[in-house]
Amino acid sequence: MNRFFSETTKRLTPYVPGEQPKTGHFIKLNTNENPYPPTPGVEEILRTIAPDVLRLYPDPVALELRQSIAKNYDVDTDSVFVGNGSDEVLAFLFQAFFGENDIVAFPDITYSFYPVYAGLYNIPFITVPLTDLWTIDLSAYPEDIKGLIIANPNAPTGIAMSAEKIEMVLKARPDTLIVIDEAYADFGAESVIPLTKTYDHLLVVKTMSKSRSFAGMRVGYAIGNKELLEGLIRVKDSFNSYPLDVVAQKAANASFLDKAYFIETVNKVIETRERFIESLCSLNIHSLPSKSNFVFVSVPGVPGKDVMDHLRSEGVLVRYFHMPRLMNWVRITIGTDEDMIKLTELLHRLTVNHNIHREK
Amino acid sequence: MNRFFSETTKRLTPYVPGEQPKTGHFIKLNTNENPYPPTPGVEEILRTIAPDVLRLYPDPVALELRQSIAKNYDVDTDSVFVGNGSDEVLAFLFQAFFGENDIVAFPDITYSFYPVYAGLYNIPFITVPLTDLWTIDLSAYPEDIKGLIIANPNAPTGIAMSAEKIEMVLKARPDTLIVIDEAYADFGAESVIPLTKTYDHLLVVKTMSKSRSFAGMRVGYAIGNKELLEGLIRVKDSFNSYPLDVVAQKAANASFLDKAYFIETVNKVIETRERFIESLCSLNIHSLPSKSNFVFVSVPGVPGKDVMDHLRSEGVLVRYFHMPRLMNWVRITIGTDEDMIKLTELLHRLTVNHNIHREK
Repeated sequence: MNRFFSETTKRLTPYVPGEQPKTGHFIKLNTNENPYPPTPGVEEILRTIAPDVLRLYPDPVALELRQSIAKNYDVDTDSVFVGNGSDEVLAFLFQAFFGENDIVAFPDITYSFYPVYAGLYNIPFITVPLTDLWTIDLSAYPEDIKGLIIANPNAPTGIAMSAEKIEMVLKARPDTLIVIDEAYADFGAESVIPLTKTYDHLLVVKTMSKSRSFAGMRVGYAIGNKELLEGLIRVKDSFNSYPLDVVAQKAANASFLDKAYFIETVNKVIETRERFIESLCSLNIHSLPSKSNFVFVSVPGVPGKDVMDHLRSEGVLVRYFHMPRLMNWVRITIGTDEDMIKLTELLHRLTVNHNIHREK
Repeated sequence: MNRFFSETTKRLTPYVPGEQPKTGHFIKLNTNENPYPPTPGVEEILRTIAPDVLRLYPDPVALELRQSIAKNYDVDTDSVFVGNGSDEVLAFLFQAFFGENDIVAFPDITYSFYPVYAGLYNIPFITVPLTDLWTIDLSAYPEDIKGLIIANPNAPTGIAMSAEKIEMVLKARPDTLIVIDEAYADFGAESVIPLTKTYDHLLVVKTMSKSRSFAGMRVGYAIGNKELLEGLIRVKDSFNSYPLDVVAQKAANASFLDKAYFIETVNKVIETRERFIESLCSLNIHSLPSKSNFVFVSVPGVPGKDVMDHLRSEGVLVRYFHMPRLMNWVRITIGTDEDMIKLTELLHRLTVNHNIHREK
């Protein structure tokens, strides 16, 4: 290890994102990308933006974009913070609110970047196991935690919690910062953004990567009480005053201005997901009830890694997590209907071959 | 202060960037932006990029761009790290290499973000005063520092140091990480990038914001020994796996492919700077010898803040720093010849009025 590494760097275990293959020969269902392009308004921005604006620094507070987001959710502009992907927003949040004398908690199975952030800022954390039904048992979290981070729907299970349940936690824990990561909520979970007006210890994190087809553009945001957001702003302005470039700001704004397209494409993904879950059911392949743009799937008798490898050899990428409870599962992103029909056929053949092999 | 702020957040004093006015009625010479647009190749990227690529995550390692940068400087691709502006690269660097038991050092007058980074990561730092001639006295830095951060040319003075002097420090201090921030070096300073092949304790940080007219696009990079860069990569992958969006990657790549345009526009800025310095000289206005795209200027008898305020009232923005040694100075970005002629006239009238007023 290099002699100049800081103590932090020495002990880091970085997050490993899903594969981004350089060639286009795969059906890519491994990183929860949207199968549809962003709203046509985004293309218009790209085609018409004056190159001359690139020579100037972008608006450091991204006012226009924050106004559009605020209008979309009927909250104050001061309640909206934007960053370079929700990953950056989450990183800022961990540093803004937690330190080495605090404890944060999250489920044992959830977005695997949370423990990485805790490591990056030397924040002690505890994890609480999901129930046998893969749900989050909020009563199992200890009293003395400063922060509770919940992805809703959770990843990679796709299972969502009701806003009512989250409000019960908000009432029961007035001195715990409750962070709800709604990266996938647009695909069918109830958002708790309206509750940010009532509870000053609630922070909702969202991304444009999935439901708005913006993974390549890197825009995420947080919505919460203005005084809480001040913490994020202080960290951001001590890290990089201009996290969002001018093209990303304008393109993101265009996305929020086209509500009809957003609803249409999100609904298409939801409908494809429901059809896909039905076909899995008819093949006797297990899946969890998803409110996201992915489905967590277990092929009886076939380890998750084998499922992933087999599908890869057939030209389809899905994600496998090498963790004790997840050995028999893969996470499958919802693509187009065509993608999912092809995948269903492959899964069908896999189960048939497995059963023939077993009967021999 | 909000009850959830971490200890770090409580003690932060964020960096304050120069004003980005919302209206276009100013000649903007306050944030060292380039007066010329980026290479036409950047416009071509914007006009032709398929919106569909935005739905996919960008290449997390920005390979194509790093290859172009590597080719440009004749270094290995593994020696190039890219980030969302050099501010992000600097932030990563402070966290990657320094901790609360290390000491970093930099001049008392330099890029004012350095002490902010140190504060963000709780890194002790010392500052060493510039000499009376506004130069950096490298022999004045103590032995026991882990890192030495030098902006070359320095800001806001614009004064550059020779590569020979930097190499002497590299030889004299084999166990100090030497960071050379070459944000402005393309405008006439000697780059020490070739020395990164010889010295494994040298890290050079660059930005595309100034010399490549990319302030709005947020692309910075670092060049250094591969093992050293591994530290930056570990921090980046624990913070945000995809700091550079797909449009920024492609546009930045286009900039590096057009060397002729880069040389042409940089030379135009240098020529304008030299003409501007000559006219200041003929007006008996002090300026420091600049190797950057700005000039540090003192109007005899007129405090810097008054110069800034007066120019602002006449439609020209320049930057003033409220610090003891800098009270009589303003930093003026080099714009077009037209901008600088207008500014020179305003400065001329300011000195005439001041002298008339004094003689009364």
